[in-house]
Amino acid sequence: MNYRLLIQYDGTRYDGWQRQGNTEKTIQGKIEEVLKRMTGQETELFGAGRTDAGVHALGQVANFHWQEERSPEEILRYLNEYLPEDIGIRKVEKAGDRFHSRLNAKGKCYRYRIQTGSVKNVFERRQIYPFGAALDLKAMERAGELLKGKRDFRGYSSLKRSKKSTVRELQEIRFREKDGEIWIDYYGDGFLYNMVRILTGTLIEVGSHQRTAESVRDALISGDRQDAGFTAPARGLTLVEVYF
Amino acid sequence: MNYRLLIQYDGTRYDGWQRQGNTEKTIQGKIEEVLKRMTGQETELFGAGRTDAGVHALGQVANFHWQEERSPEEILRYLNEYLPEDIGIRKVEKAGDRFHSRLNAKGKCYRYRIQTGSVKNVFERRQIYPFGAALDLKAMERAGELLKGKRDFRGYSSLKRSKKSTVRELQEIRFREKDGEIWIDYYGDGFLYNMVRILTGTLIEVGSHQRTAESVRDALISGDRQDAGFTAPARGLTLVEVYF
Repeated sequence: MNYRLLIQYDGTRYDGWQRQGNTEKTIQGKIEEVLKRMTGQETELFGAGRTDAGVHALGQVANFHWQEERSPEEILRYLNEYLPEDIGIRKVEKAGDRFHSRLNAKGKCYRYRIQTGSVKNVFERRQIYPFGAALDLKAMERAGELLKGKRDFRGYSSLKRSKKSTVRELQEIRFREKDGEIWIDYYGDGFLYNMVRILTGTLIEVGSHQRTAESVRDALISGDRQDAGFTAPARGLTLVEVYF
Repeated sequence: MNYRLLIQYDGTRYDGWQRQGNTEKTIQGKIEEVLKRMTGQETELFGAGRTDAGVHALGQVANFHWQEERSPEEILRYLNEYLPEDIGIRKVEKAGDRFHSRLNAKGKCYRYRIQTGSVKNVFERRQIYPFGAALDLKAMERAGELLKGKRDFRGYSSLKRSKKSTVRELQEIRFREKDGEIWIDYYGDGFLYNMVRILTGTLIEVGSHQRTAESVRDALISGDRQDAGFTAPARGLTLVEVYF
């Protein structure tokens, strides 16, 4: 039986989604631990997006296979009882045998929140980058237009050299200004390692007039990480939704 | 010059609002520290509500007097820069000389959030009591009706014997059910020590059929703490607004 989970987490305390050797402090590792506790069997969890250390999720999707059948309600209750407080399961469903969270994902939405005013949001502070200065949203929107489309985003990633394709389609970038914050929502068919954080760092440099809106094309043309901006901190980033 | 602050805080790490001797870990103490840093002068801050250890605020109000004049914008910026991340100033205004946050407060609204479903709210977990079982909202609403009004709430407080009046007017109790939570909003002209938490504990006992709705009158009649329910945990409680 193939089960599909919808997962929320506050990534602050974790070394990211993906289990790594002995590191116990990953989201994947924590959930697998509780699944093992429930049935006594090793379970491998497949996540749709490998979020970095410190990155959050509102709608991560993952799946796992079990021989024995359990009701989704039972799994939901068990997981939420034994998982730490900063990992929550929103939904458990039975999925078709061939469903695979990562391979079947058609797209994702990531959100980056930047505090631009001097008023802090105390309760959501872990999900907001406290930039603390005004940004020129119009310039950022112009730059966003230049980043959209199907392009080679190698310059906007921290990937080591590899033969895999670094072409992705950035379908939409939506900007919103509210309560002393700027929210940037990125919709794409896939994202390279650190891509959203580097795109955001570059857009912040545009918004604070450290570079022109047009200059965001440089890293697209050269494919050189040096031509893009800084890597915005993990804390402001949230995986909002995975599309299938 | 008399300045009025609108304050938000996550009370998790603090020993409550009120400065106590050597305790550095109070909200009042933290803000006074930064005010002193700004002018070099000792400043006493008067808060409208003395929230307990672990209790939060969305709209605490406080005021302080300074000889020298500073612009509200400057004070706002300075405070938010030097205060810890879990204390935020929403607004700074000049107030009339005679304004006093506590003495002039006409009423307050406190909110208590109870998680009743098995789905967790990961991002707001510090502001929610993870009760984790269903509650009979109808019974709680019936009990709420019996608690409303101008009454002696001594039985619903952790006060030591004192000659001060323990009569308060509980003007309204509003219940809401949303996303696996019950929210209880209490509106009153004033609240005794632990009163909202004991009212909530008692209502939770009603909602889980450990006692009848009618039994909430017992502690009103006897004035005996023993006749009321348990003290619900601080973490679920937030001071939402102060009315003047």
